[in-house]
Amino acid sequence: MAPQSLIELWRGGLCESIHAGHAVVYGPQGAEMVWGQADAVIFPRSSCKMIQALPLVESGAADAAGLAERHLALACASHSGAALHTKAVAAWLSDLGLADEDLRCGAHVPRDPEARCHFTCTEDKPCQIHNNCSGKHSGFLTLNRHLKGGSEYVEIDHPVQRAVRAAFEEVTGEIVAGWGVDGCSAPNFACTVEALARAMQFFAAAKPEGSLRENAAVRLRRAMVAFPELVAGEERACTKLMRAMGGKVAVKVGAEGVFVAILPEQKRGVALKIADGTTRASEAAITAILVYLGALDPAHPVVEELLPKVQRNWRGLETGGMRRAEGFC
Amino acid sequence: MAPQSLIELWRGGLCESIHAGHAVVYGPQGAEMVWGQADAVIFPRSSCKMIQALPLVESGAADAAGLAERHLALACASHSGAALHTKAVAAWLSDLGLADEDLRCGAHVPRDPEARCHFTCTEDKPCQIHNNCSGKHSGFLTLNRHLKGGSEYVEIDHPVQRAVRAAFEEVTGEIVAGWGVDGCSAPNFACTVEALARAMQFFAAAKPEGSLRENAAVRLRRAMVAFPELVAGEERACTKLMRAMGGKVAVKVGAEGVFVAILPEQKRGVALKIADGTTRASEAAITAILVYLGALDPAHPVVEELLPKVQRNWRGLETGGMRRAEGFC
Repeated sequence: MAPQSLIELWRGGLCESIHAGHAVVYGPQGAEMVWGQADAVIFPRSSCKMIQALPLVESGAADAAGLAERHLALACASHSGAALHTKAVAAWLSDLGLADEDLRCGAHVPRDPEARCHFTCTEDKPCQIHNNCSGKHSGFLTLNRHLKGGSEYVEIDHPVQRAVRAAFEEVTGEIVAGWGVDGCSAPNFACTVEALARAMQFFAAAKPEGSLRENAAVRLRRAMVAFPELVAGEERACTKLMRAMGGKVAVKVGAEGVFVAILPEQKRGVALKIADGTTRASEAAITAILVYLGALDPAHPVVEELLPKVQRNWRGLETGGMRRAEGFC
Repeated sequence: MAPQSLIELWRGGLCESIHAGHAVVYGPQGAEMVWGQADAVIFPRSSCKMIQALPLVESGAADAAGLAERHLALACASHSGAALHTKAVAAWLSDLGLADEDLRCGAHVPRDPEARCHFTCTEDKPCQIHNNCSGKHSGFLTLNRHLKGGSEYVEIDHPVQRAVRAAFEEVTGEIVAGWGVDGCSAPNFACTVEALARAMQFFAAAKPEGSLRENAAVRLRRAMVAFPELVAGEERACTKLMRAMGGKVAVKVGAEGVFVAILPEQKRGVALKIADGTTRASEAAITAILVYLGALDPAHPVVEELLPKVQRNWRGLETGGMRRAEGFC
């Protein structure tokens, strides 16, 4: 399963570091472009949150709980734990008659600089609502209310996770290759890069008037682009990219170098995995692919932010830059 | 220049991510162990700070300025910018009759959590003394006082950098393969991984009663292990590793996945480069090599910290772990 060189870091006229990986662009007729190995087996990690949220919507649980579009965005989010995020999650739980202790994601210091400072400089400890996956877990709790399952909703045999697994296998078109425990304790199902891209293509091509599942997919992808700041946060790649593409494309990062994109106008899905797991490279690679597909204006500032032709040091001197490897896009 | 798989990340029974690279263990008779390509050309980045500090000592500049061992440690440091570090650098500059504005490294928010918080939560801006290379640059300024050069001591043709280049070429045994501009604006000379390991072996085998340069090398490696907290900082890999090995081995990280080690008891030098530039992998790989060479006790807690067999998520559940790739150590 040999990955292909995708992103290079250059300094002083020499190639200093290289990131290799796998990427697939999937269209209505199947895989249209492949870099690396389409059948590389990966953990999608957070990139598949919109798949994990399908049962929440298609089951009727979201509507039974009166969820708004912003809740669906949070259900797909790896949020930064800013006040914006934690207040929304706290309110969601409260509306369910639930609280922080009902979550099963664990707590960590959030990424948002202000929030992080607060926890570094005071005695306060973060709660589970600060966990970047707390929106996804609030979605699980909402589904659980509907399915009337027990409290341990992240167990692999719990009705919530069985519903997630079924949706995952159906939209990827693969029996899961295995599963791992994610950082947030939810199961993360493994699949090939191609299968993940196929799932994103399903989301892209889904019509609101289609099946229950297609309608759910449409609602989720629309929620992501309607609330890009909830899906990630200020200065985050997902938020900046979705804003740059004016709501036309939904993107989602996953830990360990994963990125996906849903392009409804093109009816295409994209999935990529950087073999070494590095986020700077997954951000650069998804940016390159989005430009290549004509979905992202190469002159938009976000392109230079995520795939900088020119990198500068602490005195602003040019030191080198990032490039697409030969043969990539 | 094919790198070799060195460090793997496992989750749920699958290999999730892989880091490949190059590593050389160099002894009195030459390269003894090679993983990847010994002739891979790299930028050592900060890992060669002790080489860059040779002229400071061998020229007599350090003694003329009355520098103590802690200054030599700072000259080799990529410090965290904690109060410990910035106070020491500020005092050093003051003793030289110089100040922050004489530095040419640029300013950045330091890594130390308390210091970082200060700059995130107040209007204060970091000075150049907060730059992780400010100790190295104070060494350059001290040498410059001795050489009576102009103020722009990071320019490639400045006497300070010419002296550094000469020392670099002589201890690596190679004409430099090129040079880049480092994050701190100093030139960073390129060399092969083997040549960097050869230079570390020079430092390891140097005798205090040897040549002026050998004596300088001994003083610098001793300074690093005498003040591990100055060379990096609390919770940093270099500091933890040097403490774990009880002063017997000097190690130094370099940006973009570089790590070196100086083993005087074994008269060996080690250099490694992770091809994708990732620090988590360079820390794991140097740890593996140090254990393999018998220099680091495999039962020491730092081994599990830097090369964790067991990784846990935010609820303390085991999710997977790091492993040495087959064929590495």
